[in-house]
Amino acid sequence: LQLDQATPDQLREWDNQLQQDYEAIVAKKLSLDLTRGKPSADQLDLSDALDGILKGNYRAEDGTDTRNYGGLDGLPEAKRLGADLMCVPAENILVGGNSSLTLMHQTMLTAYSFGLNGAESAWENTIEPKVICPVPGYDRHFTVCEQLGISMITVPMTAEGPDMDAVEALIESDSSIRGLWCVPRFSNPTGVVYSDKTVERIAKLGQIAHRDFRVFWDNAYAVHHLDAQAPELTSIFAATRRHGTEDSVLQFASTSKITHAGAGVAFMAASTSNLAGLKQYLSACTIGPDKVNQLRHAHFLPNREALLEHMQKHAALLQPRFAAVLKALEENFADTCLGSWETPRGGYFVSFDTRPGCAREIVRLAAEAGVKLTPAGATFPYGEDPEDRNIRIAPSVPSIEEVVGAMEVFVVCVKLASVRRALAAQG
Amino acid sequence: LQLDQATPDQLREWDNQLQQDYEAIVAKKLSLDLTRGKPSADQLDLSDALDGILKGNYRAEDGTDTRNYGGLDGLPEAKRLGADLMCVPAENILVGGNSSLTLMHQTMLTAYSFGLNGAESAWENTIEPKVICPVPGYDRHFTVCEQLGISMITVPMTAEGPDMDAVEALIESDSSIRGLWCVPRFSNPTGVVYSDKTVERIAKLGQIAHRDFRVFWDNAYAVHHLDAQAPELTSIFAATRRHGTEDSVLQFASTSKITHAGAGVAFMAASTSNLAGLKQYLSACTIGPDKVNQLRHAHFLPNREALLEHMQKHAALLQPRFAAVLKALEENFADTCLGSWETPRGGYFVSFDTRPGCAREIVRLAAEAGVKLTPAGATFPYGEDPEDRNIRIAPSVPSIEEVVGAMEVFVVCVKLASVRRALAAQG
Repeated sequence: LQLDQATPDQLREWDNQLQQDYEAIVAKKLSLDLTRGKPSADQLDLSDALDGILKGNYRAEDGTDTRNYGGLDGLPEAKRLGADLMCVPAENILVGGNSSLTLMHQTMLTAYSFGLNGAESAWENTIEPKVICPVPGYDRHFTVCEQLGISMITVPMTAEGPDMDAVEALIESDSSIRGLWCVPRFSNPTGVVYSDKTVERIAKLGQIAHRDFRVFWDNAYAVHHLDAQAPELTSIFAATRRHGTEDSVLQFASTSKITHAGAGVAFMAASTSNLAGLKQYLSACTIGPDKVNQLRHAHFLPNREALLEHMQKHAALLQPRFAAVLKALEENFADTCLGSWETPRGGYFVSFDTRPGCAREIVRLAAEAGVKLTPAGATFPYGEDPEDRNIRIAPSVPSIEEVVGAMEVFVVCVKLASVRRALAAQG
Repeated sequence: LQLDQATPDQLREWDNQLQQDYEAIVAKKLSLDLTRGKPSADQLDLSDALDGILKGNYRAEDGTDTRNYGGLDGLPEAKRLGADLMCVPAENILVGGNSSLTLMHQTMLTAYSFGLNGAESAWENTIEPKVICPVPGYDRHFTVCEQLGISMITVPMTAEGPDMDAVEALIESDSSIRGLWCVPRFSNPTGVVYSDKTVERIAKLGQIAHRDFRVFWDNAYAVHHLDAQAPELTSIFAATRRHGTEDSVLQFASTSKITHAGAGVAFMAASTSNLAGLKQYLSACTIGPDKVNQLRHAHFLPNREALLEHMQKHAALLQPRFAAVLKALEENFADTCLGSWETPRGGYFVSFDTRPGCAREIVRLAAEAGVKLTPAGATFPYGEDPEDRNIRIAPSVPSIEEVVGAMEVFVVCVKLASVRRALAAQG
């Protein structure tokens, strides 16, 4: 299907053929779902030893009775788990509840309304604080900004991370910029790992940005590689120390895609000053997160070796599902003009860019054929993909056979929508 | 010690005698703590079956895999536990994380910044929203208001609950009043149960208050009676239904003082409209609370009978500690002018009102004699008790012997500070 060289007759012939393929698929009455970036039941099973792991001993290593109130910071052994996960010193870790999204929301709300560095540092003191959002990106990051009424400015994602020329130019030209969202390893949804150079440039933003500028470094897939040779992420913590910009980066992670997605432990890593700012806010919201669950997790994943060994079991379940997606894309779209994608070495997504103006229609066609995809546009602020191109494919939950079946549908829908769009363009 | 009739000589004699008693106590080098309203280790032991209670079955009754993401509302069986606890229909329950304080904070923040009933209902649209705080009250309620910059107006607590004449007069005269904090059963710290008439009048406030006015009904001690004959609390939910004021009351509770204080489950009960307003806010903050822990709690406390039976075990541990406090107060201060108190039939506190201007000095004297008390003033907004009279006694954590020992110190400190104050007043 070389659409750009095709005659109208050729396009119409393809349209007819693909329409028949599509109708055959619709007739199968499938019900498949590629929407959700969440672990499968098999993956969740890997951590079922958590409930009961304490065997009646609820004491933390420092003697804390984890059952009682208190502990805004987290248990020492839970901080070490966060340190193992994020490769930062345990003293820079704050342990939260079950959701890193909640920690990110709380931190952005604190930065916005109360100030991470005293009341004067609150972003809302600026007339219109803005946050830079690399796109495509994670919809829930955008929702946090939207709810708080913070303007979002997009920059393109590249194979090395955010377009740093664009990021630096924005920061230098607009003094109201206060934040940058990042998913640095196996980015949601493109799956890229930020290059060493990108990490270095982000670590230096604190030298050119406003004092209250913060990078929200959502390391959601820190240890979530599909193969042992997947690229590592350079330590931004070390880089900010070198550049004296420790206060400019806030790191987040959780065990949600390591143990039980909804019943894990979240972490933040930050400078002493940022941690103090957040804790001042948190002290009015809570007496402390669930320390019993922190202790369970510390017992279950006592060190980085145990953590990485555990993640290999996840990789063994995820890798064939990703392989099935990539095989379908390569067999059908390699060296075509129908779409492009990165080959993720970890994370939870494959991001597919269609020809302009096709994504919404592909998602609609797939839904009618019984395959649910993430709504087109979801990877952009306000749900608006200006070129209507990006589709996020999440293959973790369905079985391998279901992924194969869903991708057959996807391929037909991409072709059909692309041909029709080309036909429409010709007149 | 009838101070008001005493001559200066008498006072000086008492002062000398009490000073000797006090020095004898200081010499004992005690280290006792009556500050914290938290369960003792013995109480926490009652719920140690929680960890491991699922025996590998993480499915909720509706088939939900509790391990995975999702469920902003809560599991059906967890809602029923909330309904059992708060005596409202399960459909009006939202299940939160481990902290009802967090739910209250989130709800007040939503009411203040985002609106529980659409953006136009946000309190911050009012020039200076105010919240009524019965005093003495719970310091963490005041801290929420303080952090959000919401003005607090105090009204006195009586033996039947807040002074409702004062509350109604404030609401009728000041259109910027948006809230009222309540701890309706075994009030923190006075221990009173709101009378039926008080509940009825609070349920009717929605008829005279601004449309966005909300009662924050923190039913923290809903089932926390010390004896089976303790007064029940009339259902404010039923009363608001009768009066058509369902939207004016937000109820909160948790299992924190039922199971494990820091690892329990929190609940909110509210009208459909209020729940929808809060959920809109929450949907940006979290993918959902810990459902595994909800399921543990639903298994552990499957119905109201089990809940009440469990609470009897708490009462058996708490009751003698409260008896020791009350015995010391009655033996020393009954029919004197040295202090007054309510006799709580449940909850976690005994509230003692000293002669004016003595509370801070009593707390200081006790601390120097090795007995920690909650800082004087903590039961008032901004930590300022205008008459310097209220002291909150929390006897749940120390052993009975320790409570007895601490109360001996307390009694001497009350007498000594009162005599000295009377001496100073005489010139």
